[in-house]
Amino acid sequence: MFSMRVQVALGEKGIEYEYKEEDLGNKSPLLLQLNPVHKKIPVMIHNGKPVCESLIIVQYIDEVWHDKNPLLPSDPYQRAQARFWADFVDKKVYDSTRRIWTTKGEEKEAAKKEFIEILKTLEGELGNKPYFGGENFGYVDVALIPFYCWFYAYETFGNFKIECPKLVEWAKRCMQRESVSKSLADPHKVYEFVVSLKKKLGIE
Amino acid sequence: MFSMRVQVALGEKGIEYEYKEEDLGNKSPLLLQLNPVHKKIPVMIHNGKPVCESLIIVQYIDEVWHDKNPLLPSDPYQRAQARFWADFVDKKVYDSTRRIWTTKGEEKEAAKKEFIEILKTLEGELGNKPYFGGENFGYVDVALIPFYCWFYAYETFGNFKIECPKLVEWAKRCMQRESVSKSLADPHKVYEFVVSLKKKLGIE
Repeated sequence: MFSMRVQVALGEKGIEYEYKEEDLGNKSPLLLQLNPVHKKIPVMIHNGKPVCESLIIVQYIDEVWHDKNPLLPSDPYQRAQARFWADFVDKKVYDSTRRIWTTKGEEKEAAKKEFIEILKTLEGELGNKPYFGGENFGYVDVALIPFYCWFYAYETFGNFKIECPKLVEWAKRCMQRESVSKSLADPHKVYEFVVSLKKKLGIE
Repeated sequence: MFSMRVQVALGEKGIEYEYKEEDLGNKSPLLLQLNPVHKKIPVMIHNGKPVCESLIIVQYIDEVWHDKNPLLPSDPYQRAQARFWADFVDKKVYDSTRRIWTTKGEEKEAAKKEFIEILKTLEGELGNKPYFGGENFGYVDVALIPFYCWFYAYETFGNFKIECPKLVEWAKRCMQRESVSKSLADPHKVYEFVVSLKKKLGIE
């Protein structure tokens, strides 16, 4: 999800880039050198210097290429609101969804319930707007949309149906943008990836 | 720690404000109304509208009152670096230090070791600069300095000594600023607060 955010943001700005895949089971010396603190992807190299942490990279992209398709609004209060919701996605969505396919029984049920509540909160914030920030695709959309291509995997492993019509409509709207459709993985490939990940981690 | 960040930032900008204490054991209807999502402090009300999450508030303050003592640098790469280190503080320091006074035995020893490693990483980033961003007190300093008034409590409950001379020198340098010295709590009062918190939580 986190690398896709960077790809979407670069797509919005029309920036060409070289994409380098990283084997997280066998991290490259380059990754360890570029991000020695967290040792995580994504890392973006620009002007020979690394920028780490997906939401920080997205803000960096927005500041460097500020003329085309601004992602963060210009008003300080609106900016704070956008940062609040992107941070909410970061703090809540990944953790609860990971527990859907890594745990069992009660723990799994709790994770599903938590995830649905998180989606309902996000749907409430979206309301009837086309995008989280209003009329234009922006920062919160970039933060959240990559999780959409994992929905099929969550539903299949969790054996439940995500029923958030407005949010799904929003996701489909986002998918009509080339920046998004070109960056998001195929939901069935994500599912296969999770299957192989579970095997590797020894989770039934 | 988190409310003190906001107080330090407001102090740097020379903004007068009304401070309202919140009883976290019995959260006020006002807090629940202003921050229904996280139900946490700090919340800053400005122009009648709430801003939540300490680092988001600090960025908001810096953007609204941008002329005096800028906290974030103007260069996008430097800004990304500042955000990276403030985020590192958020992700690492609170969790490890909390475990120092809430756990025992091996778990406590692991927390102490982790905290020391985090401080060493931060000390490495500080290097020989007076402040994290260079010559001027800035965003990372605001994010980290409130933890300094908890050092005495960490040392006392952890029964160890924090030996990071450059970091302690940096903290003393920060304490010479009125914005910091006026906002940070007395270390002995913090210690007493943790004693009462442990009692309330039923931790020996």
